[in-house]
Amino acid sequence: MYRSHNCGELRAADINKEVTLAGWVQKSRDKGFMIWVDLRDRYGITQLIFDEARTDENMMQRARSLGREYVVQIKGTVIERESKNLNIPTGEIEVLVNELTILNEAQLPPFTIEDETDGGEDLRMKYRYLDIRRNPVKNSLLFRHKVTQEVRNYLSNLDFCEVETPYLIKSTPEGARDFVVPSRMNPGQFYALPQSPQTFKQLLMVGGLDRYFQIVKCFRDEDLRADRQPEFTQIDCEMSFIEQEDILKVFEGLTRHLLKTIHNIDITQFPRITYDEAMAKYGNDKPDIRFGMEFGELNAAAQHKDFSVFNHAELVVGIAVPDAASYTRKQIDALIDWVKRPQVGASGMVYCKCELDGTFKSSVDKFYDQADLAKWAEVTGAKAGDLILILSGPANKTRAQLSALRMELANRLGLRQPNEFAPLWVMDFPLLEWDDETGRYHAMHHPFTSPKKEDIHLLDSEPGKVRANAYDLVLNGNEIGGGSIRIHDKETQALMFKHLGFTTAEAQEQFGFLMNAFQYGAPPHGGLAFGLDRLVAILGGQETIRDFIAFPKNNAGRDVMIDAPATIDNAQLDELSLVLNIKG
Amino acid sequence: MYRSHNCGELRAADINKEVTLAGWVQKSRDKGFMIWVDLRDRYGITQLIFDEARTDENMMQRARSLGREYVVQIKGTVIERESKNLNIPTGEIEVLVNELTILNEAQLPPFTIEDETDGGEDLRMKYRYLDIRRNPVKNSLLFRHKVTQEVRNYLSNLDFCEVETPYLIKSTPEGARDFVVPSRMNPGQFYALPQSPQTFKQLLMVGGLDRYFQIVKCFRDEDLRADRQPEFTQIDCEMSFIEQEDILKVFEGLTRHLLKTIHNIDITQFPRITYDEAMAKYGNDKPDIRFGMEFGELNAAAQHKDFSVFNHAELVVGIAVPDAASYTRKQIDALIDWVKRPQVGASGMVYCKCELDGTFKSSVDKFYDQADLAKWAEVTGAKAGDLILILSGPANKTRAQLSALRMELANRLGLRQPNEFAPLWVMDFPLLEWDDETGRYHAMHHPFTSPKKEDIHLLDSEPGKVRANAYDLVLNGNEIGGGSIRIHDKETQALMFKHLGFTTAEAQEQFGFLMNAFQYGAPPHGGLAFGLDRLVAILGGQETIRDFIAFPKNNAGRDVMIDAPATIDNAQLDELSLVLNIKG
Repeated sequence: MYRSHNCGELRAADINKEVTLAGWVQKSRDKGFMIWVDLRDRYGITQLIFDEARTDENMMQRARSLGREYVVQIKGTVIERESKNLNIPTGEIEVLVNELTILNEAQLPPFTIEDETDGGEDLRMKYRYLDIRRNPVKNSLLFRHKVTQEVRNYLSNLDFCEVETPYLIKSTPEGARDFVVPSRMNPGQFYALPQSPQTFKQLLMVGGLDRYFQIVKCFRDEDLRADRQPEFTQIDCEMSFIEQEDILKVFEGLTRHLLKTIHNIDITQFPRITYDEAMAKYGNDKPDIRFGMEFGELNAAAQHKDFSVFNHAELVVGIAVPDAASYTRKQIDALIDWVKRPQVGASGMVYCKCELDGTFKSSVDKFYDQADLAKWAEVTGAKAGDLILILSGPANKTRAQLSALRMELANRLGLRQPNEFAPLWVMDFPLLEWDDETGRYHAMHHPFTSPKKEDIHLLDSEPGKVRANAYDLVLNGNEIGGGSIRIHDKETQALMFKHLGFTTAEAQEQFGFLMNAFQYGAPPHGGLAFGLDRLVAILGGQETIRDFIAFPKNNAGRDVMIDAPATIDNAQLDELSLVLNIKG
Repeated sequence: MYRSHNCGELRAADINKEVTLAGWVQKSRDKGFMIWVDLRDRYGITQLIFDEARTDENMMQRARSLGREYVVQIKGTVIERESKNLNIPTGEIEVLVNELTILNEAQLPPFTIEDETDGGEDLRMKYRYLDIRRNPVKNSLLFRHKVTQEVRNYLSNLDFCEVETPYLIKSTPEGARDFVVPSRMNPGQFYALPQSPQTFKQLLMVGGLDRYFQIVKCFRDEDLRADRQPEFTQIDCEMSFIEQEDILKVFEGLTRHLLKTIHNIDITQFPRITYDEAMAKYGNDKPDIRFGMEFGELNAAAQHKDFSVFNHAELVVGIAVPDAASYTRKQIDALIDWVKRPQVGASGMVYCKCELDGTFKSSVDKFYDQADLAKWAEVTGAKAGDLILILSGPANKTRAQLSALRMELANRLGLRQPNEFAPLWVMDFPLLEWDDETGRYHAMHHPFTSPKKEDIHLLDSEPGKVRANAYDLVLNGNEIGGGSIRIHDKETQALMFKHLGFTTAEAQEQFGFLMNAFQYGAPPHGGLAFGLDRLVAILGGQETIRDFIAFPKNNAGRDVMIDAPATIDNAQLDELSLVLNIKG
């Protein structure tokens, strides 16, 4: 036994006990006749004391030699601390050391192992094992474990069975780019790493497993944006003999359970809005509803005067920024500059101040009188003291721009509190979306999503108008989960592939196994997948997912700690029947 | 709601209830005026009844049209069954159907969906989703889930934190062959899929996580023997500030918990033997101790007479087969033929019958008298009525041969009962083993295993004699887990790589990140990994692991259901900077 207690557990009740502790030297203070050392492990910090009067000189010397992050084991007596530190649970005691063993020395770490470190992102990634010693990262990993345990227990209690689906599967052209794995035993052939276990979980439903889940790694070889990882984790779920309502109920229950268990927050019923409604009200299919600023469409209220910018716009739409009528000209100009940035792309912005005295002051006073502006205030829900900001142009683009502005203002105004949680369901997504680049429709969710029965007749005439039995779970402006009721018969699945531009032969080659399976008695089924990395980060009140991933990769897909990917031997390539062909 | 109850839950107490059920048609019996249908789902089977007297003719017709594996939904009334079937929990009732909906038709399945199917292995793999409908496979998957949930809860309660380590890592030449993954973003470079999260879990210990576990897929690109899979699952565990005894205690506790929870078997303390002892007593480092037949070494008792075969042998060793003295000459000759098979490779076998009258009759009576043979009986522990079987030759080879014979006899004699469980620890494995092919020592466990302190001085002089702080957990003749106390300082790790034939530069390039990490304060640590597939199969009383894997691959590493691996587009290869180079 290396220790009788960990560094977080000794209390006043333990005074006079003989204990053995082991851990890392967090810091030491040397006052000559006394040396105090903070000994740290995963569970906490305990203060050690070496006292000239009670410790032999040799041990005083050795205590003096301890550097930061040395690994030590001590034996000693728990004593009452003279100056208590009530900020930490062990702060009433200290341990008078009578035996000291240095288990391992340590070089000076390249950054401080403190909650607020002086290490930059790159350095922290290279020495991730040191970064993990810091409370913010360590606690994020412990938190992730707690969440996954809660998820597993919750779903298991509801008869969900966790099944491991294969990692070495088949590459498909639909969707994002696959990572592939050359097969040595089958020269010229490749496995692919799964982007999700989608088809396998559907086959488990065909297999009668009824309720499946899996917390599983998925892979996408995409150009990485910030905060995207080539490997990520899903809570993947599927149920049979269910309707959409059953699925929403189960996973709303799970989310409610997590919010309750982790944050002691009770949320009774999650609001639901349709995709169309979300786009109209928030310009966004994953709206943050912790704050208002809902869109007010001003076409009717603004297109009857001589202001040609509005008159020629497909959409005129505004939001009321609470208590912002007092913004200075300079502040407003800054906002106008902000919306003109290439990332947002608006060409201009109109504002209207709703003064406290009930009058209005707008940047287009030349065209609109007080009655017009009062109408704008009514439509956008602005009250006295608010500032109305208005964008105009093509509908979709303008909505996206105003959504970006709405989020920016919410951030600036501190309306996005990480400890406040506002989930909602967004329903009735479009089945297909047009892609200019490939000149065809793509599945908005994936090709296995079922169209709404009442919309199927539109598939040929107006495919963009067909709604899907698809739903997203949104939390604080992030999509944390998404799913659908699946197609479960061969004919509809074949029709779907046809509309996605597959020939019959292509569909059969890629997804024949699934369509065949549907011919042997597939039950109605559907499911949902949560993005675990994001879910855990949001539940943990964080913006970025990296601290919740033990060993993340950087934006170039590299693990800088182990220096991967790397070259491999020619012999290894040869065994795989491959040669390199690097251009440029 | 597709159903009010599942097909396994209705009981006599539910009689007169109106219910909705959904499931698959297991079979139907048509007596003209009455039709019975067995409706099946994951949870059980409920009998439906269509009765001419109480059911309209149209529905009788539709009931008649139901084929095997059709997916149907019914509404009806629970009634008492006339001829009760007490073999199934729902056997006291049946449901008189008043509404029938066919949710999906089904083609005739290619094999029967019964506990004993007429489908061969290949067909079952191709239609695995149908195979999963069969109880033996379905129950194996549910059992696996139960075991993993127990493992997770047990370890979580002991403060173990499950951490997901990366799947896209770096290829290393040590150990088995890696699967590699070309990186599009880093042309000419490859990730590797992990053979185990070994280095990452050690880095988590350096990171202070203290107690880690993970149920995780691992990958080995090896020529597949029967019952080996290219992807397999480990319960991977690691602890800090521990000695070997602490690890044995925790994982013995886990195994005991599983045996208790799953089979209600109490096993107090697991026996422990050393590797040397296991080899001497059983010729095997994973002995099945559910039965005796321990080896008796007969050199002293047999090398003093004129039988040159024994006199020239390095080892003469025998086992006592219980109650086999009555074997006929023909039976014994068959055993002699059996040990001469190439898979065993013995050149001959000597036997000695211990007759019930206390006399002995051996195949070498010419050389040995009754007193000699009595001595053999004493050494092998043979009692009257037993048959002593003796092999001789080079020690290691002969032990392996006798071990194979021992297992074969135990199988024939029914001594390996799947519902009896006999775990044991095998300790003190050699650190290194000589490999003739590469002409160097290899790590028996892996290069991170620590040598026993008292043996380190032998590293240069007699490396084969150095024992490791390594241990295996053996259950019923299978290694279900293995682990070690790790090296935790850079010097010892560098020394180890040197002895494995690495140059300093090679060691640094491959494992520099780990050796560097050791310089920043690594704690003493060690761990263990269970092979989950095997563990679950043995706990489930099965010999083969396939039924416990949802979608296994065949011996050529192919998933015959989805037909993977497969060729990929040239465009895809091009993006990866690769071209094919297939020989022959």
